[in-house]
Amino acid sequence: MNAYQARTGDMQFLLSSVLNAPAKLQALPAFADVDPDLMQQVLDESGKFVSEVIAPLNRDGDEIGAQWQDGVVTMPTGFKQAYQTFWQSGWPALSASAEDGGQGLPCVLEAMLYEMLSAANHGWTMAPGLLHGAYECIKHHASDELKAQYLQKVATGEWLATMCLTEPHAGSDLGLVRTKAVPLPDGQYALSGTKIFISGGEHDLTENIVHLVLARLPDAPPGPKGLSLFLVPKFYPDGSRSRVHCDRIEEKMGLHGSPTCVMRFDEAVSALVGEPGKGLNAMFVMMNAARLHVALQGIGLLDAAWQKADAYAQERRQMRAPGQGKGPGQADLIGEHPAVRRILDTQRAWVDAGRVLAYRTALELDLIKHSPDPTVQAAAQRWCALVTPVMKSVFTHQAFHGGSDCLQVFGGHGYVREWGIEQIVRDARVAMIYEGTNEIQAIDLLVRKVLVDGGQGMNGLLDGLLAELPQHTKSSTPAQARVQTLRAVTQQIVKAAPQDAALAYRVADDYLRSVALVLMEWAWLRIEAGVDASDPQSAQRWSAPAKALRDWVLPEFQMRSYIIVSQCTAAA
Amino acid sequence: MNAYQARTGDMQFLLSSVLNAPAKLQALPAFADVDPDLMQQVLDESGKFVSEVIAPLNRDGDEIGAQWQDGVVTMPTGFKQAYQTFWQSGWPALSASAEDGGQGLPCVLEAMLYEMLSAANHGWTMAPGLLHGAYECIKHHASDELKAQYLQKVATGEWLATMCLTEPHAGSDLGLVRTKAVPLPDGQYALSGTKIFISGGEHDLTENIVHLVLARLPDAPPGPKGLSLFLVPKFYPDGSRSRVHCDRIEEKMGLHGSPTCVMRFDEAVSALVGEPGKGLNAMFVMMNAARLHVALQGIGLLDAAWQKADAYAQERRQMRAPGQGKGPGQADLIGEHPAVRRILDTQRAWVDAGRVLAYRTALELDLIKHSPDPTVQAAAQRWCALVTPVMKSVFTHQAFHGGSDCLQVFGGHGYVREWGIEQIVRDARVAMIYEGTNEIQAIDLLVRKVLVDGGQGMNGLLDGLLAELPQHTKSSTPAQARVQTLRAVTQQIVKAAPQDAALAYRVADDYLRSVALVLMEWAWLRIEAGVDASDPQSAQRWSAPAKALRDWVLPEFQMRSYIIVSQCTAAA
Repeated sequence: MNAYQARTGDMQFLLSSVLNAPAKLQALPAFADVDPDLMQQVLDESGKFVSEVIAPLNRDGDEIGAQWQDGVVTMPTGFKQAYQTFWQSGWPALSASAEDGGQGLPCVLEAMLYEMLSAANHGWTMAPGLLHGAYECIKHHASDELKAQYLQKVATGEWLATMCLTEPHAGSDLGLVRTKAVPLPDGQYALSGTKIFISGGEHDLTENIVHLVLARLPDAPPGPKGLSLFLVPKFYPDGSRSRVHCDRIEEKMGLHGSPTCVMRFDEAVSALVGEPGKGLNAMFVMMNAARLHVALQGIGLLDAAWQKADAYAQERRQMRAPGQGKGPGQADLIGEHPAVRRILDTQRAWVDAGRVLAYRTALELDLIKHSPDPTVQAAAQRWCALVTPVMKSVFTHQAFHGGSDCLQVFGGHGYVREWGIEQIVRDARVAMIYEGTNEIQAIDLLVRKVLVDGGQGMNGLLDGLLAELPQHTKSSTPAQARVQTLRAVTQQIVKAAPQDAALAYRVADDYLRSVALVLMEWAWLRIEAGVDASDPQSAQRWSAPAKALRDWVLPEFQMRSYIIVSQCTAAA
Repeated sequence: MNAYQARTGDMQFLLSSVLNAPAKLQALPAFADVDPDLMQQVLDESGKFVSEVIAPLNRDGDEIGAQWQDGVVTMPTGFKQAYQTFWQSGWPALSASAEDGGQGLPCVLEAMLYEMLSAANHGWTMAPGLLHGAYECIKHHASDELKAQYLQKVATGEWLATMCLTEPHAGSDLGLVRTKAVPLPDGQYALSGTKIFISGGEHDLTENIVHLVLARLPDAPPGPKGLSLFLVPKFYPDGSRSRVHCDRIEEKMGLHGSPTCVMRFDEAVSALVGEPGKGLNAMFVMMNAARLHVALQGIGLLDAAWQKADAYAQERRQMRAPGQGKGPGQADLIGEHPAVRRILDTQRAWVDAGRVLAYRTALELDLIKHSPDPTVQAAAQRWCALVTPVMKSVFTHQAFHGGSDCLQVFGGHGYVREWGIEQIVRDARVAMIYEGTNEIQAIDLLVRKVLVDGGQGMNGLLDGLLAELPQHTKSSTPAQARVQTLRAVTQQIVKAAPQDAALAYRVADDYLRSVALVLMEWAWLRIEAGVDASDPQSAQRWSAPAKALRDWVLPEFQMRSYIIVSQCTAAA
C-alpha cells in the first residue's frame, strides 16, 4: 500500500494560473503582504507535513482505531504526537487572526491544507476539523470573560473543540433537541442531556476539550427558536473536571481513527454563548465554511482514491487492450483498457473541477471577511450561499461513488485491505451524511436559496459565470447554452412550485446536480484557458480529464433537465 | 437491528401471475408433477428456513467472521450447524437430478431460494453458492470413476466445492494462469501453484471439500487454450489428506462470514476433468447459472437494504413533510418526505423488476435443460446469453449504490453498525467484482454477444419483448419507442465499430445500461398487467414503484443513448 502523496504542483497551477488568487488576495488590505512566494511556500510546507507526518498514520487509524474504556478514549498510535506537532507548528491557526494567536493567512490556504489532510487521513483530520468553526463561534458570540479563557487556546489548536448538536431523536431536525439548561445562581447553567455522534467528544490528543452545546432553557418555546448555545470544557480554568462524560463510542463503517462519542451532560456547569434562543444562529454562522470543509474532504478522498487506482493501473497487466499497440508480454497495462481509462479520467475531471470550485469558494470567504467593497461582498455572499451546498453534496457523493469506481480498477484486490482503497470508500461514506445530509443540501439550495427570491440570486450567479467564460472557443457555445437551459429550468420550477408543495422537494436533487454540472463545465473551461498550450506535458495532463468531462459527465445534465421539466409539467 | 424476513407473497405473485411459471413448467415432461401447490409449498418452506435459521446468523458472520489459524479455518458461531441442517434437509439438491440424489425441481425454485439466502446472509450463502456449478461440471465432464466418488456428495451438498481460478497475476485474464500439472505414472497429476480469492477454500462446515482447479500441462500452449481442469479433494477416498493448504484468508471490506482463501497446491495429486486444454470450456458451461446467482445476490441484498430502510422510515420522525397532512407531534415520519420516498420507491422498482427478470432467466435455464422443442431451446439460449450479463452487472451495481441510498435514509444511524445496513453495503460491494467484473459483463454483452452477429440476436430478443408487451395501454407506446431506439443505437454501433477498435469497449457500459432499462420497463409492464386492479391493496403495493421507475429510473435511457451516439459519430 502506498500512502497519499500531496502533489502541490497541480494545486498551485489551479490557484495561480486558473483562479489568479495571489493577485486577487494581495489587492485586499488584509493580505497586502501575502505575496505569491509566501503562498507557494505555505502550500509546499503543508504538502510536506501532510505527506510525511499524517499520511503514514492512516492505516493504523483504521485498523487500531480509537479505543474507549471506562469513559477514556485512547487514540491510535502516533495520532497524539502528530497532533502536538501540528498545533505547535501553527497549522490550525493558519487563517485565525494574528490578534488571537493565529497567522492571519487567507482561508484558501487553509482550504488547500484541509483537502490534503483529508486525503491523507480522514480520521485524524476530524480532530482539528471543527476548530475553525468553534474559533469563529467563540470570537463572535462569547462574552469577553469566556474569550479570555478559551479563544486563544482554540485559535491555536492547543485545545480541541466539539459541536454537540445531535440527540438520539434529533438529527436533521434540531428543533427536537431536548437537552436542558437550568440557570444557576451565579449566572451559569446546569446542562443535562445526551448528545450522540460527537466527533472527538473525548480523546487524548490535547489537555483540554471545549464543548459547544445546543440546549433548551426552562422557559424556551418548542422548536428551533428555543435553542441556546452553551460552552462547557472538559476541565474548567481552575483545573476541576466538568460533569461531561463519554459513555461509549460508536462502531462505524469506517472513520475508525475518529471517536464518534455518546456524550452525557450530568448537570454540567456551563456558560451561555450569545443570546438565549439564538443558539442555531451562533452555530450556523459558520455553516458555509464547515460545509466547504466537508466538500474538501470529498475532493481529497477522491484524489487519494484516484492516486491509488492510477498507480495500480500503471503496473498491473491483464489481457490485450483494443486498438493499442501491443506492448511486451502477453497482456497490456490495465490503464490502457478503455473501461479503466474512463474511470480514471472521469475521477480526475471531478477532482480538478472540485479544486477550482472549492478554492474559488474559499477565496469568496476571504472576500466576505476582508473586501472593503460592499458590492464585492454581496456577490461573494451569493456565491457561497448557492455554491456551498452544491459542492458539499456532489463532491462527497463522488468521493464515495467515484471512490468505489477506483476500487473497481483493482478487481478483487480492491475488496481486500491490502491496497487501502476499500478504507477510502468506507471512510468517505460518512461525508454524505454529516454537516447536513446531501438531501438537505439539495433542499437548502432549491427551496431556501433559489425559490425564495424567485431565482434572482441564481440568475445573478449564472450571469457572473457567463461573464467569466472564455469567449468564442469551440467549447464556450455549449457551455453558454447549458447556462441558458438551467435558467429556463429554474424559472419552470419557480412557476410550477406554487401548484404543488412537494414539487421542489422531489426535484431538489436533480436541480442541485444540474447546477453542479454547469459549475463543473465552467471550471474546466477556466482550466483550459489557463493551460499553456505550448507545453505538451501540461497540455496532455489536462486534456484527458477535460475530454472525460464532456464525454461521460456532462450528458447527465440533459437527463436532470428532463426529469425536472417532466415533474413541473405534471404539477401544472 | 431487525433481521431479513422472507416475504414470499410478492415472489409468488411475480412467479405465478406475472410469469405464469407453474403452467409453463408443468408443460415440460420433466416437471409434469410439479404443480402450483408444490411450488408454493417449496417457496414457503424456503422462506421459513431462511428467516428462522440463516438470517439470525448474519451479524455474527460479520462481527466474528471466519478465523484462520495454522491452516485451519473456523467458521462463525452457528454456521456449521445451519449448514448441516441445510444439506440434510435437501436444500442444496433442489434442482439436481433425482438420479444423483437431488430433488429434480426447477431451477427457478432454486433461484428464489438463493435470492432469499443472499438477502439474509450473504457470507454464509457463499459456501453453498458454488455447489451447483461444481455439480454440473463434474456431471458433464468428469470420468465415471470420479463421478462415482464425488458426484452424489456434491449434488446433495454433503461435501462443499470450490472453483480455483484466480492467481495473483491472473484475475480477469485467466490466460495468464501458471499453476502446473505434471503427469504421474498412474494417470494422475501433481498440481503445483498458488490460487487466490478462493471462497470457501478451507472451513469446518463439511467433512470434505472438493476443489476444481485450472492449471497448465507441461506441453500446454500459452494463453487460455492451454488450460485444463483438475479435481483434487481435501481428503481422498481412502481418507488421506491431499497436499492442498490454506496459507491465509484475506482481510476484506465485508463478507467476513466467507473465508476468502489463499490456496497452495504443493504437488497435490489430482485428476483431470474433461479433455486437456478444455479447462475453460468445462468451467464456463456453468457461467450463465453462476452469473444469475450473483445477480440474485444483488437483488436479495437490495431487498434486505430496502426492508431495513422502509422499517426505519415508518418509525422515525424528523421535520414536517411538505404537502402532507400534519400528523401528531412536531414532526412527520421520514417516509413522508419526498427525498426518502424517492429512495424507497426507486429501490423497490429495481427489486421487483430484478425478480421478474431473474425468475424469467431461471425459467429459460429450465427450458434449455428440459424443453423438447429446439426452437424454444434456441430462444432460451439467446435470452440467457444476452440477459444474464446485463443482470449480473446492473443488480450488483444497484445492490451497492441503491443499498447506499437505503443507508442514507438512516442518516448518521446508517453509518454505525447498530442497524446492520452498513454491513449490507460492505457485503454487496464484492458482487460487482467477482464472477467477471461488471466491466467485463458489459464487454461480454456488446462485443461477444451483440456485435458478433451484427446485432441479429439482440434484435430477436427485442422482437420477443415487443410481442410480450401489453398492447394499447398508455405505457406501452413509450416502451415500444424505447425498444426501437435501442435497435437503432445497436445498428449505429455495428456500423461504427469497424472504424474504431476501442469504440465498443468505450460504450459497452452505456449499452448494457440501455438494455437493462428496456428490460426493466418490460418487466414493469408485465407486472402492471398482472395486478388485480379491483384489489386496492394490491394496486397500491405495485403502483408507487412503477411510478418511481418512470419518474426517476427510465430517464437514464436517453442519456445513455446520447453518449453512445456521440461516440459513434466521433468514430465515423
